[in-house]
Amino acid sequence: MQNKSFSDFKSHAQDIVQTDIIEAESLLLSHQWSQLQQTIETIRQKIKQSGLWAPHLPQDIGGQGLTVSQLGEFSAILGQSPLGHVCFGCQAPDAGNAELLHLYADDRIKKQFLIPLASGAIRSCFAMTEPAMAGSNPTRLGASAELKDGHWHINGHKWFTTGADGADFAIIMAVTEPKAAKHQQASMIIVPTDTPGYSLVRNISVMGSEGDGYFSHGEVKFTDVKVPQHNLLGQRGDGFLMAQQRLGPGRIQHCMRWIGIARRCFDIMCRHVKQRHITDTQTLAQQPVIQVKIADSYAAIEAAQHLVQATAERIDKEGYAAARHAISMIKFHTAQMLQQVMNHAIQALGGLGVTDDTVLSFFYREERAARIYDGPDEVHQLSLAKQLLAKFD
Amino acid sequence: MQNKSFSDFKSHAQDIVQTDIIEAESLLLSHQWSQLQQTIETIRQKIKQSGLWAPHLPQDIGGQGLTVSQLGEFSAILGQSPLGHVCFGCQAPDAGNAELLHLYADDRIKKQFLIPLASGAIRSCFAMTEPAMAGSNPTRLGASAELKDGHWHINGHKWFTTGADGADFAIIMAVTEPKAAKHQQASMIIVPTDTPGYSLVRNISVMGSEGDGYFSHGEVKFTDVKVPQHNLLGQRGDGFLMAQQRLGPGRIQHCMRWIGIARRCFDIMCRHVKQRHITDTQTLAQQPVIQVKIADSYAAIEAAQHLVQATAERIDKEGYAAARHAISMIKFHTAQMLQQVMNHAIQALGGLGVTDDTVLSFFYREERAARIYDGPDEVHQLSLAKQLLAKFD
Amino acid sequence: MQNKSFSDFKSHAQDIVQTDIIEAESLLLSHQWSQLQQTIETIRQKIKQSGLWAPHLPQDIGGQGLTVSQLGEFSAILGQSPLGHVCFGCQAPDAGNAELLHLYADDRIKKQFLIPLASGAIRSCFAMTEPAMAGSNPTRLGASAELKDGHWHINGHKWFTTGADGADFAIIMAVTEPKAAKHQQASMIIVPTDTPGYSLVRNISVMGSEGDGYFSHGEVKFTDVKVPQHNLLGQRGDGFLMAQQRLGPGRIQHCMRWIGIARRCFDIMCRHVKQRHITDTQTLAQQPVIQVKIADSYAAIEAAQHLVQATAERIDKEGYAAARHAISMIKFHTAQMLQQVMNHAIQALGGLGVTDDTVLSFFYREERAARIYDGPDEVHQLSLAKQLLAKFD
Amino acid sequence: MQNKSFSDFKSHAQDIVQTDIIEAESLLLSHQWSQLQQTIETIRQKIKQSGLWAPHLPQDIGGQGLTVSQLGEFSAILGQSPLGHVCFGCQAPDAGNAELLHLYADDRIKKQFLIPLASGAIRSCFAMTEPAMAGSNPTRLGASAELKDGHWHINGHKWFTTGADGADFAIIMAVTEPKAAKHQQASMIIVPTDTPGYSLVRNISVMGSEGDGYFSHGEVKFTDVKVPQHNLLGQRGDGFLMAQQRLGPGRIQHCMRWIGIARRCFDIMCRHVKQRHITDTQTLAQQPVIQVKIADSYAAIEAAQHLVQATAERIDKEGYAAARHAISMIKFHTAQMLQQVMNHAIQALGGLGVTDDTVLSFFYREERAARIYDGPDEVHQLSLAKQLLAKFD
Repeated sequence: MQNKSFSDFKSHAQDIVQTDIIEAESLLLSHQWSQLQQTIETIRQKIKQSGLWAPHLPQDIGGQGLTVSQLGEFSAILGQSPLGHVCFGCQAPDAGNAELLHLYADDRIKKQFLIPLASGAIRSCFAMTEPAMAGSNPTRLGASAELKDGHWHINGHKWFTTGADGADFAIIMAVTEPKAAKHQQASMIIVPTDTPGYSLVRNISVMGSEGDGYFSHGEVKFTDVKVPQHNLLGQRGDGFLMAQQRLGPGRIQHCMRWIGIARRCFDIMCRHVKQRHITDTQTLAQQPVIQVKIADSYAAIEAAQHLVQATAERIDKEGYAAARHAISMIKFHTAQMLQQVMNHAIQALGGLGVTDDTVLSFFYREERAARIYDGPDEVHQLSLAKQLLAKFD
Repeated sequence: MQNKSFSDFKSHAQDIVQTDIIEAESLLLSHQWSQLQQTIETIRQKIKQSGLWAPHLPQDIGGQGLTVSQLGEFSAILGQSPLGHVCFGCQAPDAGNAELLHLYADDRIKKQFLIPLASGAIRSCFAMTEPAMAGSNPTRLGASAELKDGHWHINGHKWFTTGADGADFAIIMAVTEPKAAKHQQASMIIVPTDTPGYSLVRNISVMGSEGDGYFSHGEVKFTDVKVPQHNLLGQRGDGFLMAQQRLGPGRIQHCMRWIGIARRCFDIMCRHVKQRHITDTQTLAQQPVIQVKIADSYAAIEAAQHLVQATAERIDKEGYAAARHAISMIKFHTAQMLQQVMNHAIQALGGLGVTDDTVLSFFYREERAARIYDGPDEVHQLSLAKQLLAKFD
Repeated sequence: MQNKSFSDFKSHAQDIVQTDIIEAESLLLSHQWSQLQQTIETIRQKIKQSGLWAPHLPQDIGGQGLTVSQLGEFSAILGQSPLGHVCFGCQAPDAGNAELLHLYADDRIKKQFLIPLASGAIRSCFAMTEPAMAGSNPTRLGASAELKDGHWHINGHKWFTTGADGADFAIIMAVTEPKAAKHQQASMIIVPTDTPGYSLVRNISVMGSEGDGYFSHGEVKFTDVKVPQHNLLGQRGDGFLMAQQRLGPGRIQHCMRWIGIARRCFDIMCRHVKQRHITDTQTLAQQPVIQVKIADSYAAIEAAQHLVQATAERIDKEGYAAARHAISMIKFHTAQMLQQVMNHAIQALGGLGVTDDTVLSFFYREERAARIYDGPDEVHQLSLAKQLLAKFD
Repeated sequence: MQNKSFSDFKSHAQDIVQTDIIEAESLLLSHQWSQLQQTIETIRQKIKQSGLWAPHLPQDIGGQGLTVSQLGEFSAILGQSPLGHVCFGCQAPDAGNAELLHLYADDRIKKQFLIPLASGAIRSCFAMTEPAMAGSNPTRLGASAELKDGHWHINGHKWFTTGADGADFAIIMAVTEPKAAKHQQASMIIVPTDTPGYSLVRNISVMGSEGDGYFSHGEVKFTDVKVPQHNLLGQRGDGFLMAQQRLGPGRIQHCMRWIGIARRCFDIMCRHVKQRHITDTQTLAQQPVIQVKIADSYAAIEAAQHLVQATAERIDKEGYAAARHAISMIKFHTAQMLQQVMNHAIQALGGLGVTDDTVLSFFYREERAARIYDGPDEVHQLSLAKQLLAKFD
């Protein structure tokens, strides 16, 4: 996409976020799930008509074909609302799943699953994390799939399967090659959720709420699930490799989404302190202890944004492999920045900050996990350090 | 109470917390309010029979008459569970309200409200904070009460009126002397919640949940509410003075409750990392990045506990006035310690930490406000500094 | 300068820093001032011959005419050594003074002072800060200059007059318009250091050392000093305006210099931990607690560098006024990053880190002041916040 | 010592610190070593006459026989000045060495070395740390001592041998049992510094200065040094055990000394901001950003003091072994508190803070090492965590 048109593209999206999408947040904050779903559908129609749908997908399957760095900028716009990505059709895990299908599925699967997924007609989930295994070591998997008579026989216990509630199919990560090297044991297999033996045990209650649909994290069991051999994505044993490829771009988008969240929190904080009187003539905005929070938040957001944007541009130029250490770096740096900014904003809002009268407390709850999902800070810190230290031999 | 018997007293309470009370937490975490209420009642019976009920109240109204420092130690035990204080009959705001009635109410009011409140037969709330006024300046109040024909005519808009849902009476803080000096304008007046003009607008949704009963924060309106003159507590214009006296001991108990919370989070963290394998032979407990969190948390908790305990002992010896700056100091120091420890614990638990499968995420959500209620950190920091600097003239 | 040639330019400078300049540091660390001065002269000759001298100055007075952003990148290279800027002829305060003379001096002054200053033949100092006045409010000045009979009669007491020891002239900031508005009272006047009444009271002992020459901070008195009227730079009362203009680019260069320092500290830290054994088979580099410091340091440096570079590019495009808030932002953000990285590096080196066997402890001592000079963090934080909040009216 | 008399004892010491000792600091800050030494001698005479000399030593060798917790309190008083411990005869490493000799030396050695050391007539040093070995693993030692013909033949290379400059004897830690278990290989041996083969290579330049005498850290070589067999302290192979016993009480005193330093820095900060005007009517003390530093510093100091004092009291009651984890805890907690307070104080003083016109910058430089010597923070954090986690099996 050309710079000129991308600039229009962004400003169009910004308008929709500022008007329609932020308006709809109150339905999310008050857990009015069915009304929320309807409202999202309405907004999605508008977005599709505006030619902004699925910015992450190639144009041949109905997307906008943005580059990594464009998608990053775009993600910061959508991230301002928890509904942004959902409305534009690029919410996790559907976004990543669609990329997987686009790259690795055969035509039959593409027709059956990718086309309706890309258009928002169906939903999906990604079953990787397991309750019995530490997420910080993704190569430890209990789930297994055995190929017998042209079918995969799958058993496993997963959780944090985001959006399992309402998903039409799952992509499960399971060990198919138990005797291979540690990183070559797992494969990805598509499991329609109406397959016998698949069950959504519960929507896990996370930070006080079980959520619903897109806004839920499932605990899922696969008990002697049987799917055809061609439901395998890519090659046997390539699961980790594909997961890395899937998570790489996803991390840029997470980071930019977090920057969008941080900007929104910053905005709410600034607006609040400007109008909040502590005496007849003084507002919170005039208090130095508040001003320091505002200055620190701003500097932290700006620094993180430049860092993520530079990483995205590097990926566009040199590919993911070259930017691997940079991706680890932005993952923990941006997540920590976000937590700091959310925390400052809540403190500046006082009692109002912990209520659901603003979106702040939603972000504060939901995005504590930013420092945990897709690898906790500590895993990325150690990984980055090892890569950096290797240059000093 | 003698040291020997207090030691038994504490160990008895610890047993009840560890067995009955922690067992009941799942009802709170899953919002099963009516079952929770029944379970609390059962536990309360046991506690009453054990002679541990209402540790904060004088013995003549059915309490245990602990000193400030004993009550502090006790509060750290109860604080390990969000249900601890409720089960022992010393939950906010009833605890503070009972103290107010004990000190300032006439016999009629005591009979009508204090006796049933002390026994847990009725509940109460304390209506001070207002949505239109910054909590950091408590002398700014919009609520007013005018004495006409032997009755107080009250108007006001309050929120964060904890436990308003189900309360039998409110104590409202309202301006009765608009022309007096800033700190002598307000008075406290008892308003039965069935008085015409009193209405609970809503349970505010806080951190994603409207809660229920004890576990709720109300938005309350007083519209031309009329109560008898003798519903005034203490003297006209003494509202702030009484609020300070009410909050002083309350802050010790908050701080010790937070220490109890921090110890519980520490405990959950240590147990988790000991059993969580990241390889077949390695647990999280063996990871230095986890060990640093554990060491830092422990040192921070211990330091805060000694600081709060020393402040409590000073109050017992020298009274509140002498310890005023120390109370400001422990308020922000302990609240910040708590946030840090909760945060470490969540990070150490990873995905599990943000679920409601442990009590961690409840504490993380609910106690973010520890740095806000009863005066935000910043207010206490500035107050402490001014008192300290005054000595350098 | 073209990108291609600037790339060569930088790599040439990097070579000189890595070889000649770092080699000379031991003379600085062991206070061998006269040998150090000789060595600097030798390196300067090489730099002049290489066409790299005075990168900050316009080409018409012997400099290299770099843009703001090029100069920033260059400053990060030179900053790796405390001798970098001195050897390349762009050390404070001579660099800023030369810019002032270039912009505001008449031809006579330029000939007398600018030409030899630009070539490194003479040195200068800038007398602004006063011991009796808080540096955080630069408009408070005790120094005064009165115009009588075609001469300025100057009285004042200054300190932190960097490089006063050995300077041939000072530029003093003094009040010439005591009745004007606060920001229009001061002017800049050139005072040759052999003028009667000028005295260097002492080299202030800073962090344990009085230093020498370039590496010193003077306390200076002006007692009935008399200089010709044309020694005024610019217009009467324009002192603050000119100081802002002088400090604006200086801040970019300070920030990039600090990034150079941080990179050097990072480098020393990484090299040390790779070779430092703690058992026969384990090095410090394999310790996760060290790895976390390395990862955090790297991310912080990268983020700060992108932030400063973006600010420099903005100045090149839009001018200083447009970037005023960004300059405040990078001033405190980068200085804090530097302190954090230096601190991590010292901790990683252990006992060696506090010795003068590496340059770390020199940076640690000297650059604590980075968070103070040119406006303490707090001044820039409040200034930034006010500018940001003004947009929320 | 009784409480009453200990109270007088402390107040007497406080007077001497506030008057004589602080007065003498300027000699230290300006490196006037010989005058400093004379002044110290004069003050020592006064202290001896006041019956305050050597508070750490038993009364039978001329000390005051304080308990661990009394000594802690006393150390906080002396710590207010870098000269405090030296003047009272309880400076490291002489204090610890005297304790070693008292416990482990035979009568001949006691007479020759302990008596004059206790009285301040001679000085000593303790040679443990080695440049080639990471201090974080004290069991790695290169120094060796072999018993041949009734003499120890010693070879080794040590550094950070505090006070080697001027010491009359060294206690060296050397491997005497190379085949024993890791913690039972080393022994302690007395080496008079006039023994052939002993050489003080240099006073290491630390934080910009080589120091002198008490205020120096030596690099020391032992080349085929030969001393009599009875110069062994305690039993062969008990070196680590004895070092632990020596360091245990030393850590309490270090921590309390740091608290003294922190209080002094706090005091300097408060006095400065009260008198520093930033406008005609406003002082720094009225600035909220300064007030926050003051409040945070105060709370941190108080918390640390209570923690250390509680640990000291526990040692008095239960002995060192019971308090082992608490000693690790206070070591890193107090050292980190100190760094934070020193840093706040410097920032509050601005430019003045980095000069040697106050003692702040001396403390800032010298006590960066508080987080390193006697075990870096990280070592104590990991050690504490392991001890704590062991209870969760």
